[in-house]
Amino acid sequence: MKLEANDKLILITNDDGLYAGGLKTLIRIMEDFGKLVVISATESRSAMSQALTVKQPLRVKLIDEDDRKRIYACSGTPADGIKLAVNQLLERMPDLIASGINHGSNASASILYSGTMAAALEGCLYNITSVGFSLNSYSSSADFSGCEEYIRRISTMLLREPLPTGICLNVNFPALPASQIKGMVVTRQASGNWQEEFEKRKDPAGKTYYWLTGNFINHEPEASDTDDWAIQNGYVSVVPVTTDMTAYGFMNALKSRL
Amino acid sequence: MKLEANDKLILITNDDGLYAGGLKTLIRIMEDFGKLVVISATESRSAMSQALTVKQPLRVKLIDEDDRKRIYACSGTPADGIKLAVNQLLERMPDLIASGINHGSNASASILYSGTMAAALEGCLYNITSVGFSLNSYSSSADFSGCEEYIRRISTMLLREPLPTGICLNVNFPALPASQIKGMVVTRQASGNWQEEFEKRKDPAGKTYYWLTGNFINHEPEASDTDDWAIQNGYVSVVPVTTDMTAYGFMNALKSRL
Repeated sequence: MKLEANDKLILITNDDGLYAGGLKTLIRIMEDFGKLVVISATESRSAMSQALTVKQPLRVKLIDEDDRKRIYACSGTPADGIKLAVNQLLERMPDLIASGINHGSNASASILYSGTMAAALEGCLYNITSVGFSLNSYSSSADFSGCEEYIRRISTMLLREPLPTGICLNVNFPALPASQIKGMVVTRQASGNWQEEFEKRKDPAGKTYYWLTGNFINHEPEASDTDDWAIQNGYVSVVPVTTDMTAYGFMNALKSRL
Repeated sequence: MKLEANDKLILITNDDGLYAGGLKTLIRIMEDFGKLVVISATESRSAMSQALTVKQPLRVKLIDEDDRKRIYACSGTPADGIKLAVNQLLERMPDLIASGINHGSNASASILYSGTMAAALEGCLYNITSVGFSLNSYSSSADFSGCEEYIRRISTMLLREPLPTGICLNVNFPALPASQIKGMVVTRQASGNWQEEFEKRKDPAGKTYYWLTGNFINHEPEASDTDDWAIQNGYVSVVPVTTDMTAYGFMNALKSRL
């Protein structure tokens, strides 16, 4: 891949690994927008949040290259991959980071656990315009065709006009064919959480272990201005996300309590 | 440990592991406030962010118990530990989750990578009043004595009046003896990021690997209303933190761009 001065440079990653259908779809679409550098793990790194690999060394390997892209396998988390790419692998800072398409929604509180969105947040901290795309289906054979038109529209917009410092986008798609998607809406993060159901088992030695499973609970299922409502009702949801987690509205009350 | 009806129940965790000095200090202080359940890993889980263990089973073991506390070792991340405790180990929902005292600052963007603060955020998602404490020193033999008075004041306040839904506290201490600490201030998260310096090495087989290292850069070092400024200038910093990452101020501008 030869990067010309007027080429857009796009960094692609995900947290479902290099062989995930969502990543393949994203690469195919983004090839129309610029030269690509893809970095991901060979295995899934779901629910890794913005974890970093600090106690193990990181490995990275160029596994494929053609005229339009280079693809790297990385041993670390999605956030590690962005850091490695920006610092060691890219010719220059990218014009855009696109992460996904995740197999599963990252609406509501899921953003806090998401490796896909951690990659976007990591880009954001480097002041690179960044977006995470997620489909509301955990199926490994999910149909991503409904996402394409919207990924093209969002990418066109982001490459024309960068996002403000400290803000990235969390885009979630309903699991519907293109013809049934009602449009795209700007929403806020729904209030919700994952309620766990630990499955308790005995290993062959008779010792107890647990599998973490759970169900997402939306605390405000009727709120039509939220991301989870949008994808449950046939809309593409776009939430602008900030890396600043300060609860500004509670600062004065806290001052009076302390 | 026998939990009486009028006992406060406090869940304690950290991300530096069961043998960290910061955890021992926190346990000693919090024993004066109620009955304790402590859950942590036997090894450090730093920089794990809000990662969850979904591809491996979780193990948990009661390793110590006396009249005032039970201590569990958990194989997972800090967020796993909170989920396991709330769902499987506690007699009832705790009155308070206290995480730390972390060996190292979690001011500014460090909150995004922090296992200590992930535990507090996890508690917050369960609507449990939660706080993370961190000292601005990475030393394993750090002096935590300056923290004590403020941990007592904050815990008294939190047990008297719970935090609003969706808000927890990120408390950072300067690495100073008590006599040199100037007081406690409510601040906001400073804008900053970690700039990496990957150390590239060859393994015995001649293959390249990287160690992730880096330095924190405060993008607004003069802003005296921020957490990083406070701890650099001798104050205890208290940031109210929200689990809602929506960038509300950018929603209208985004609507006009899409």
